[in-house]
Amino acid sequence: MATRTPDTLEVSYDEFCGALAAKDLQPLWTQAAKLMPPQPIPRTLPWLWRWQSVLPLAQRAGELITIERGGERRVLALANPGLNGLPYTSSTLWGAYQYLGAHESAPAHRHTPSALRFVVDGSGVWTTVDGDACDMSAGDLVLTPSWTWHDHSNPTDAPMVWFDGLDLPLAATLESVFFEPHPDLAQNVPQPHNASTRVHGGRALRPLGERANARHSPLLVYRYRDTDSALRELLDARGGPIASLEFVNPSTGGPALPTLGCEMHRLVPGRRTHPKRKVGSSAYVVFSGTGHTIINGERFDWERGDCFVTPSWSAVEHQAAEPADLFAVSDRPVLEALHLFREETLDRPQDVTRTFAPK
Amino acid sequence: MATRTPDTLEVSYDEFCGALAAKDLQPLWTQAAKLMPPQPIPRTLPWLWRWQSVLPLAQRAGELITIERGGERRVLALANPGLNGLPYTSSTLWGAYQYLGAHESAPAHRHTPSALRFVVDGSGVWTTVDGDACDMSAGDLVLTPSWTWHDHSNPTDAPMVWFDGLDLPLAATLESVFFEPHPDLAQNVPQPHNASTRVHGGRALRPLGERANARHSPLLVYRYRDTDSALRELLDARGGPIASLEFVNPSTGGPALPTLGCEMHRLVPGRRTHPKRKVGSSAYVVFSGTGHTIINGERFDWERGDCFVTPSWSAVEHQAAEPADLFAVSDRPVLEALHLFREETLDRPQDVTRTFAPK
Amino acid sequence: MATRTPDTLEVSYDEFCGALAAKDLQPLWTQAAKLMPPQPIPRTLPWLWRWQSVLPLAQRAGELITIERGGERRVLALANPGLNGLPYTSSTLWGAYQYLGAHESAPAHRHTPSALRFVVDGSGVWTTVDGDACDMSAGDLVLTPSWTWHDHSNPTDAPMVWFDGLDLPLAATLESVFFEPHPDLAQNVPQPHNASTRVHGGRALRPLGERANARHSPLLVYRYRDTDSALRELLDARGGPIASLEFVNPSTGGPALPTLGCEMHRLVPGRRTHPKRKVGSSAYVVFSGTGHTIINGERFDWERGDCFVTPSWSAVEHQAAEPADLFAVSDRPVLEALHLFREETLDRPQDVTRTFAPK
Amino acid sequence: MATRTPDTLEVSYDEFCGALAAKDLQPLWTQAAKLMPPQPIPRTLPWLWRWQSVLPLAQRAGELITIERGGERRVLALANPGLNGLPYTSSTLWGAYQYLGAHESAPAHRHTPSALRFVVDGSGVWTTVDGDACDMSAGDLVLTPSWTWHDHSNPTDAPMVWFDGLDLPLAATLESVFFEPHPDLAQNVPQPHNASTRVHGGRALRPLGERANARHSPLLVYRYRDTDSALRELLDARGGPIASLEFVNPSTGGPALPTLGCEMHRLVPGRRTHPKRKVGSSAYVVFSGTGHTIINGERFDWERGDCFVTPSWSAVEHQAAEPADLFAVSDRPVLEALHLFREETLDRPQDVTRTFAPK
Repeated sequence: MATRTPDTLEVSYDEFCGALAAKDLQPLWTQAAKLMPPQPIPRTLPWLWRWQSVLPLAQRAGELITIERGGERRVLALANPGLNGLPYTSSTLWGAYQYLGAHESAPAHRHTPSALRFVVDGSGVWTTVDGDACDMSAGDLVLTPSWTWHDHSNPTDAPMVWFDGLDLPLAATLESVFFEPHPDLAQNVPQPHNASTRVHGGRALRPLGERANARHSPLLVYRYRDTDSALRELLDARGGPIASLEFVNPSTGGPALPTLGCEMHRLVPGRRTHPKRKVGSSAYVVFSGTGHTIINGERFDWERGDCFVTPSWSAVEHQAAEPADLFAVSDRPVLEALHLFREETLDRPQDVTRTFAPK
Repeated sequence: MATRTPDTLEVSYDEFCGALAAKDLQPLWTQAAKLMPPQPIPRTLPWLWRWQSVLPLAQRAGELITIERGGERRVLALANPGLNGLPYTSSTLWGAYQYLGAHESAPAHRHTPSALRFVVDGSGVWTTVDGDACDMSAGDLVLTPSWTWHDHSNPTDAPMVWFDGLDLPLAATLESVFFEPHPDLAQNVPQPHNASTRVHGGRALRPLGERANARHSPLLVYRYRDTDSALRELLDARGGPIASLEFVNPSTGGPALPTLGCEMHRLVPGRRTHPKRKVGSSAYVVFSGTGHTIINGERFDWERGDCFVTPSWSAVEHQAAEPADLFAVSDRPVLEALHLFREETLDRPQDVTRTFAPK
Repeated sequence: MATRTPDTLEVSYDEFCGALAAKDLQPLWTQAAKLMPPQPIPRTLPWLWRWQSVLPLAQRAGELITIERGGERRVLALANPGLNGLPYTSSTLWGAYQYLGAHESAPAHRHTPSALRFVVDGSGVWTTVDGDACDMSAGDLVLTPSWTWHDHSNPTDAPMVWFDGLDLPLAATLESVFFEPHPDLAQNVPQPHNASTRVHGGRALRPLGERANARHSPLLVYRYRDTDSALRELLDARGGPIASLEFVNPSTGGPALPTLGCEMHRLVPGRRTHPKRKVGSSAYVVFSGTGHTIINGERFDWERGDCFVTPSWSAVEHQAAEPADLFAVSDRPVLEALHLFREETLDRPQDVTRTFAPK
Repeated sequence: MATRTPDTLEVSYDEFCGALAAKDLQPLWTQAAKLMPPQPIPRTLPWLWRWQSVLPLAQRAGELITIERGGERRVLALANPGLNGLPYTSSTLWGAYQYLGAHESAPAHRHTPSALRFVVDGSGVWTTVDGDACDMSAGDLVLTPSWTWHDHSNPTDAPMVWFDGLDLPLAATLESVFFEPHPDLAQNVPQPHNASTRVHGGRALRPLGERANARHSPLLVYRYRDTDSALRELLDARGGPIASLEFVNPSTGGPALPTLGCEMHRLVPGRRTHPKRKVGSSAYVVFSGTGHTIINGERFDWERGDCFVTPSWSAVEHQAAEPADLFAVSDRPVLEALHLFREETLDRPQDVTRTFAPK
């Protein structure tokens, strides 16, 4: 190398490190093992939030925080203690419970983070997505894809609480978050309602000549009755201990949203699933049943409405005590798109060494 | 050009043409207008075959032609008079009616041409595709994709006739036809039946981790009850005069078969569809209802079970007299894959200048 | 099946076949073996056209046939004797030699069939494609993709003859041929010339932000000097007896044209290639060298400028007597897009049973 | 909603927030504006590192830190001051200078983060990637894609310093980092060297029958002579003030690596580029020339070897004082794959309000 060394320093090693810092440089060799570990060392911790703890707080939020134009949703974020106080459920996922009181509306807006709503309980709320009013009932999955206008309204006499899943932590890392309030409180809703399910809800059928929409699924609502029957058929055909379905974009066969994997898992009671681990984190919402999940040797007992998170490359086994359906949101489509996904089945079941004490 | 001319001939123009022929050469300039017309000049003729004519002949074939090992199907091909005596329905499509007697079976085989079966009437026959036994009922579409083993068996006391659609003319042009009889008369059928509909029949749902199958749809049967409800929803959402659905490969969102477009069209009685033309031919099978179709100014009256063909770039309008569902098979996926598809809506309805007299 | 049989005929088998014909029906069972053979039975025959025979006829055409506005190109089509007098080289490919006299121009037009020009000898002609003037020299490949305007002009003092490859037979079967003359004799040519090679001719480099063009390659000319050096490198890296390259669309990595595979093969003298067969036909143009090719046991000797065709599923082996480059056009992209492609290497070399006597 | 409220709390708002924290919940409404800003608020700061500052420190590292089996590379990471002490150049990119002494080798390993090497100066070092030995010279780009074995060796008498670009910050957020040392210090290197450039280095040419590799480019080295000539041609064809090329995967036409965009930009001296902003960050390495870049109104003067970073959605304009080539690495392929990319040209040039003082 022909370049000369204008001012090579004569310094001790400590002085050298100081000299690096002064120039906004850091040595790799002192932190290589931490930066490049043999396998992922997630900051995300395995964790669980109890529906019985969240629900009264959500209701309390409904009393204390009023919704007004320009205000925000009454949303309680599930904050993973491993993430330094950030309101994130994992390093890539935002999970939260949102509360909407009787006869209330949450004003319309749009943002680049993609979102999904999964209804744990209740019915009667409408989510309007780019002018398509979608009704929401228990077990339904509703998408509000990136940069689509959306608002929620509750014309019923009862409040409703649902689960929100977003890719916000990833979008923040990618420095890609845009937000815009709608000029009106609520979108104009042309008839008919639920247009996406009418036009794109066929079973392996699409309107002739319709183009693929790779940005997101043109189907915005996935009904629980369809999920339920598909799980039953899959379990019949392939047997247990688990039937796992992914919600897909019918125009491409790919994931419903490019950044969020949406899944439903049905567990056969009394049977333990094979221990597996995969790259990427998942947040599970218990839609029905009771049981427990073992994550890296720690037992997490769950019941309806609870949410728990599995970090990347953690060993995971599920076992239901009674028939159970688990909804899950994951970052799997991101890892697959970037060719970083891998998964494996472990040789033998985990030993349970401790039990998580939920708050 | 440095090349020398070793033996330039002194000949008249006629002698010159003879000299070309002697060397297996043909001049372009004498036939350019025919080879490269301003728009397609199809050899395929608009045509119609009557169910009431085909059915007794199919039944007669059932009496005269016995099925034995190594024998062939009792299939009556719809031979378009424009195609020089070839047993093809259009230049790319094979359409036929197949007859299977009570308690008969058609032996297992496979071939590279893709095939579909559309059931006009009846039920109870099983088509087994690569070991998956699929039952067939009126309005169902059953796929036997390229190079999949398939056999048909009729355990009932009544014969059944259904429509066969194949890409055989195209496969012949592409010199790509392979055929192989199965070592056994019938395939072994592991339980459970209808596995494809159980595993891949979810509504925008797929088994988690399942890869896309670009060769053909993993779903082998499309049930009429699903088609019917999707047509009804689509008509509700978008209005008439026609609702048109394409059967898709749920793992890719693309066509169910790479060479055959499968469609169902529902007509609102009393309303005439907009006149359209498209590149590529279609064979329509009337599943229900009565009505007529105008093709290049010629009127084709149809009723249940009839089949008619529309050639490439022909002007087409449909009008039902009573609620009607038309199944169609086309070469559209081929034209789209090769970037040769185009379509347009004409400015005004066609004048009817003649009426087709079916045989 | 509930349907009744209104008029079942009492006829002998012969009468029955007549009854079918009267209704435009044909039985499958009498012709199944021909329609569905165990492996392809091509109509295309292995054949060879000699440059030394074609060239004087092309020059003669240049004297006899004048080019005028609205007239046609002086093109001599290589008519395969297996195709019933059609001016096609194989069932899917049109191969021809085109002659353009000194200071002549062929008027601008466009058509849906895709075309390529391969220059066997000479230089100095310009082909203008959608306003981009491309110069042509020996060994260059020039594309005139589907529905692009193109004209040819020869500003030099010498005539030039080049090879034309088109997908016209396939486009005809697909009833998809559109043709349009340009309003002017020649296109307007904005500067600079050879824009496609300047913008899209980088080596694994593309203008930032440029979108993929799946319809056809944005690169319109492939220079022989690039082909030559890539063949040399490939042969160095992988050894002989043959190095085979495909010309690709740099924006997708796929074939340069969706319906025509463009290939160059370099043969190491004295070595025989492994016997192979593949679905689909190819037309080979000898760019340099001498040698022979064995097709289904028949020997075809060739020298510079000759063209020979290999039918689908024919066994093919090449052997050069001196260093040889063979340009080839094939229908392989069509077969691959439709999932009908297959190929295999045969266990042992073919016995040569006869030698083709070219005209 | 039928669910009852078992233990609704009577608390003040402050007590309520405490109650949330006790259950690992966080309110959205207090931080919504920060989490969902109107447009990205990057943590990444615009910054610049001077080659003249880095180089002596790299050389000093070469003296102080010896390379041994199991040890780490002598790499100086460019640590962006906005990222809380992390050794990252932006929120998604790792940029660094790596030093390899005369006659030294860096041991073989592999990791899931993708990496690229861009040679600012010198020549003679070999990087071996999955057994393919690639030589490196000034201006060359060398890829070590995700999970490929790689080692570096310097058989020359002079040390060499090059720029490393990795997606490590993104891979860390995705909790997807795996690392594995090679069982041997160096990989076995079968002949011939530079196989990837021989086999995959053709200009829009690929070995016939080769499949697309979507995981990463099969071409591992991009030579500066090719980049240089493509930039010159592009500038000729389209004019200034800037010519921008992306290095692509020739088998797909997509980005060379799925997570890292690799670009080269040539600036015409004396002309200011249009002010633009885009989602996602870039690290620029000055390969040649001098000039300055205005980022959000701040002026960054640069010369050969310097590296500067542009945060997401920052306004960016470049102006060269003498002919300049800027290599850039970005996260653009990630944003495009996830449908989060957007860019815009600003209406008018930025006012320069301050000048960055490099260290």
